[in-house]
Amino acid sequence: MTSTNNDIFYLGIDGGGSTCRARLTSATGEVIGTGISGPANPVHGLHSAQASIMAATELALAAAGLPLTASSRLVAGLGLAGVNLPSVYQAVSQWQHPFHAMYLTTDLHIACLGAHGGGDGAVLIAGTGSCGCVVASERMTVYGGHGFLWGDKGSGAWLGLEAVKAVLLAADGLGEQTQLTAWLGEHLQAEGVMIVDRLATAKASDYAQLAQCVFRAAAAGDMLAINLLRDGGQYLSALAHKLGEQGPKRLSFIGGLAAPMTPWLHPEVAARLSDPVDLPEAGAIHFARQQFSPS
Amino acid sequence: MTSTNNDIFYLGIDGGGSTCRARLTSATGEVIGTGISGPANPVHGLHSAQASIMAATELALAAAGLPLTASSRLVAGLGLAGVNLPSVYQAVSQWQHPFHAMYLTTDLHIACLGAHGGGDGAVLIAGTGSCGCVVASERMTVYGGHGFLWGDKGSGAWLGLEAVKAVLLAADGLGEQTQLTAWLGEHLQAEGVMIVDRLATAKASDYAQLAQCVFRAAAAGDMLAINLLRDGGQYLSALAHKLGEQGPKRLSFIGGLAAPMTPWLHPEVAARLSDPVDLPEAGAIHFARQQFSPS
Repeated sequence: MTSTNNDIFYLGIDGGGSTCRARLTSATGEVIGTGISGPANPVHGLHSAQASIMAATELALAAAGLPLTASSRLVAGLGLAGVNLPSVYQAVSQWQHPFHAMYLTTDLHIACLGAHGGGDGAVLIAGTGSCGCVVASERMTVYGGHGFLWGDKGSGAWLGLEAVKAVLLAADGLGEQTQLTAWLGEHLQAEGVMIVDRLATAKASDYAQLAQCVFRAAAAGDMLAINLLRDGGQYLSALAHKLGEQGPKRLSFIGGLAAPMTPWLHPEVAARLSDPVDLPEAGAIHFARQQFSPS
Repeated sequence: MTSTNNDIFYLGIDGGGSTCRARLTSATGEVIGTGISGPANPVHGLHSAQASIMAATELALAAAGLPLTASSRLVAGLGLAGVNLPSVYQAVSQWQHPFHAMYLTTDLHIACLGAHGGGDGAVLIAGTGSCGCVVASERMTVYGGHGFLWGDKGSGAWLGLEAVKAVLLAADGLGEQTQLTAWLGEHLQAEGVMIVDRLATAKASDYAQLAQCVFRAAAAGDMLAINLLRDGGQYLSALAHKLGEQGPKRLSFIGGLAAPMTPWLHPEVAARLSDPVDLPEAGAIHFARQQFSPS
């Protein structure tokens, strides 16, 4: 069988810590199917990530009226969380995948490509984590995004962890009193040392759940919460300035915390934001198209 | 057999994340044996903690010329890391131990009792973690000590983690340049995002290993390292003031970082420090004596 453009479909995968999204297009770019499945961050399990990718792919194929065996006709672009770590990138690359071709990059890269229709541009991302990413002349540079333990300021997990620290300091009489004590106490059904007991095995996504307490306390005028959001906004604004050094034509702010964090950005950064053109899975297809040269 | 004072020995156990120390005394308080074994923090494994406690006990019994069956004549005081968490305290309490009696408290409590010869007093602790502890009228109050993720400022793990954060910010051009980049790079044999890869599964004790880089950089005049140590010293000094509110007659600074951190305390706190009288395992014996009422 001679492989021609008409035999090929493009698959875009956006794999993160909680969900995996697939988009299927024809060779000419028409969307013919989508699918959503579970967690696909290979850091938290290579095999479960692969299983989620295949589950979302199967749903997208089914939506397009295609059998799973059509996987061999897919040119897949995978944008996955965690593959910025070289050891993880290598592990995923060695997957004996069922696709015609597979091109792997980070979730950040496809988010940036998706936000700007496959062209150059920059994205500021704040969700469970935070980072900045700029694509210029098909070359991507990332700032931040090291994980909430090591950075990720302005992210949900960072806000949640800082809120916990502040509440524990206040409980010891070593930090200022804050309404976060009441909000976190209600959310966690715990106070003082019991908060630590409750969070002993908490993941970034668990801390990100606590970020809503910070926004609520700030809305009620709590200075500690307000200062946390200012600090986070300051970091995200510094990230945006860093991205701007490479002269991107467009800057988008994406992720679950983009809307609530926008008021905390420097006004000149907020004024520069453009709405994203499309979703990360569209960026994954742009990436696959850029990488693929049909034989 | 009637149990009298003469049949009884006292066992003091100091169990932490890396070692377990046992001290054995006669009923009249004479030290007749000691033993050291491996990790005994029940948070990291209840059974291995129990095994370490028994291994150190067996060594102490052997040093005293006593068989393991003499365990049934021991009144044991156990001071263990992690039992400040109620769920952990409960789990250890349910141990079907071989002793005549077992009394359980925190490693902090016995450290405080040991430092002050069984009497009232306060201790400031800085090692892998940090906290403050004051015993007044046999009642103990603890400040801090929540773990490096949630606090523990001025501790080795906190210094190491903050150093990593600073190096990553500097690598992104978002924080000030620091000699820590070179020191940490040499220690971890990694730079930039590879640092995160290297530390993906790092424990508090791994971060504490990095604290030496902060002291070295500060000694070489690095302002970022100096400010970290000032910040840590400020917190430890605030802890000391908090302890002072309960009017302890003595305050000791103990733990692996006590010596290098003393110059970073407020001068009036440093001037108030008294040398500890004895080690935590001696405090564990004081605790066992206080709790035990021979039948």
